[in-house]
Amino acid sequence: MVNILAVFITGTAGSGKSTLTSALADYLENQDNYVSILNLDPAAEYLPYTPDIDIRDYVSARSIMRKYKLGPNASLIAAVDLMVTRIDDIKQQISDLDPTYLIVDTPGQLEMFAFRDTGPLIVDRLSMDKSMVLFVIDSVHARTPLGLASSLLLSLSVQLRIQKTQINVLNKADLLTEEEIEDIENMIEDPDYLEVKGGSELVSRIGGVIRSVNILPEPIPVSSVNGQGLDRLHAIMEQVLTGGDKPS
Amino acid sequence: MVNILAVFITGTAGSGKSTLTSALADYLENQDNYVSILNLDPAAEYLPYTPDIDIRDYVSARSIMRKYKLGPNASLIAAVDLMVTRIDDIKQQISDLDPTYLIVDTPGQLEMFAFRDTGPLIVDRLSMDKSMVLFVIDSVHARTPLGLASSLLLSLSVQLRIQKTQINVLNKADLLTEEEIEDIENMIEDPDYLEVKGGSELVSRIGGVIRSVNILPEPIPVSSVNGQGLDRLHAIMEQVLTGGDKPS
Repeated sequence: MVNILAVFITGTAGSGKSTLTSALADYLENQDNYVSILNLDPAAEYLPYTPDIDIRDYVSARSIMRKYKLGPNASLIAAVDLMVTRIDDIKQQISDLDPTYLIVDTPGQLEMFAFRDTGPLIVDRLSMDKSMVLFVIDSVHARTPLGLASSLLLSLSVQLRIQKTQINVLNKADLLTEEEIEDIENMIEDPDYLEVKGGSELVSRIGGVIRSVNILPEPIPVSSVNGQGLDRLHAIMEQVLTGGDKPS
Repeated sequence: MVNILAVFITGTAGSGKSTLTSALADYLENQDNYVSILNLDPAAEYLPYTPDIDIRDYVSARSIMRKYKLGPNASLIAAVDLMVTRIDDIKQQISDLDPTYLIVDTPGQLEMFAFRDTGPLIVDRLSMDKSMVLFVIDSVHARTPLGLASSLLLSLSVQLRIQKTQINVLNKADLLTEEEIEDIENMIEDPDYLEVKGGSELVSRIGGVIRSVNILPEPIPVSSVNGQGLDRLHAIMEQVLTGGDKPS
């Protein structure tokens, strides 16, 4: 039995977790890897891929809503919390498939997953041999010093909750010009540049900290549309799979 | 016409925003202040107070779900985004009431409010004469170095998004012993102590940063059950209302 690397795709609603899941799985399969996709969003209405394992077979937010006459908010929370009870079934399915890469698409609302007890617990239980987290940042939020710093702080907060090797991904990079991507990289490399670009001194100080504490501070520009950056993601995943937990 | 201080209560789902809204409004009224409560959660099923102004009169997640046949997730997002279109009505109602304190209970899911464009925009438009944000941290999440650091990072991330004077509130303080509260204060005052209490060096470094960038780094212990800390919150609010934006 080979090692399984579980890759958890997290990020705020709308950041593009599901499309990245789909694009990344396709890319890895085209490179002759055996990939399984696990959908962990019990409230997903539409998915751009066909999951090999689907939490909705066990727990569905829509049916919880109907069955217990809950509102949308309460039914989402109940659904996410109930997922824990089906971990053993999911693990069994993963073992049966025994893929090299398990790509896990997490619930649409990051908060419900990462900032309740459920998410960190599920990631831990499903981490198999090796695991890592991709934190997806929407390019729209990364263009300004404030938006970039806020996204990276959120990522760091999630990293502390989930406690796995975590890589920031700058998703929808096809929406950015090369100059904008360079600008974002410069803002992270040189916190003073955050101030130059209009951030406050606070933002600049926060930038300095993020740079100093993150293993890989610069988010990797990725596009599910044109495929850019997927090769770099793959290389990092290979490193985690075969080597230590911390990519350098 | 007197000044109006708009106090936005934010925090993750389950942190106790609505009960704090209720307790704080009661406290302020008992101190002879004219207080109005605005409920901004379009998906609230039950509220422990009677709002003076209620977003559900204009936008309801439940009826959006029925009307457009959306799932729980999509209906929540649609409801929060639709709130923006009713800001003028809400502002009119606030002007008619003309309170000294406007306590604003925000959507259950912090993510949908703070990490979409809607929240920061609404806070800005409703900020009236003066405004501040209370970021509610659940005591359960603050007991460990990791949980505390993660909560404070999330708070800082929200502060960068909303850009208002922001105070951290340690809610449900009645669930903590005096020793636990002291421990939390010590962890923030002395980042080394985060490591002593079992945090990693990373957590300790993050603690140092939070201490250095936050205006008021220590969260104020508050209980909606026994009323502790509400006097201190009131004092800070008075300061913001009558003086500058930054409480010291």
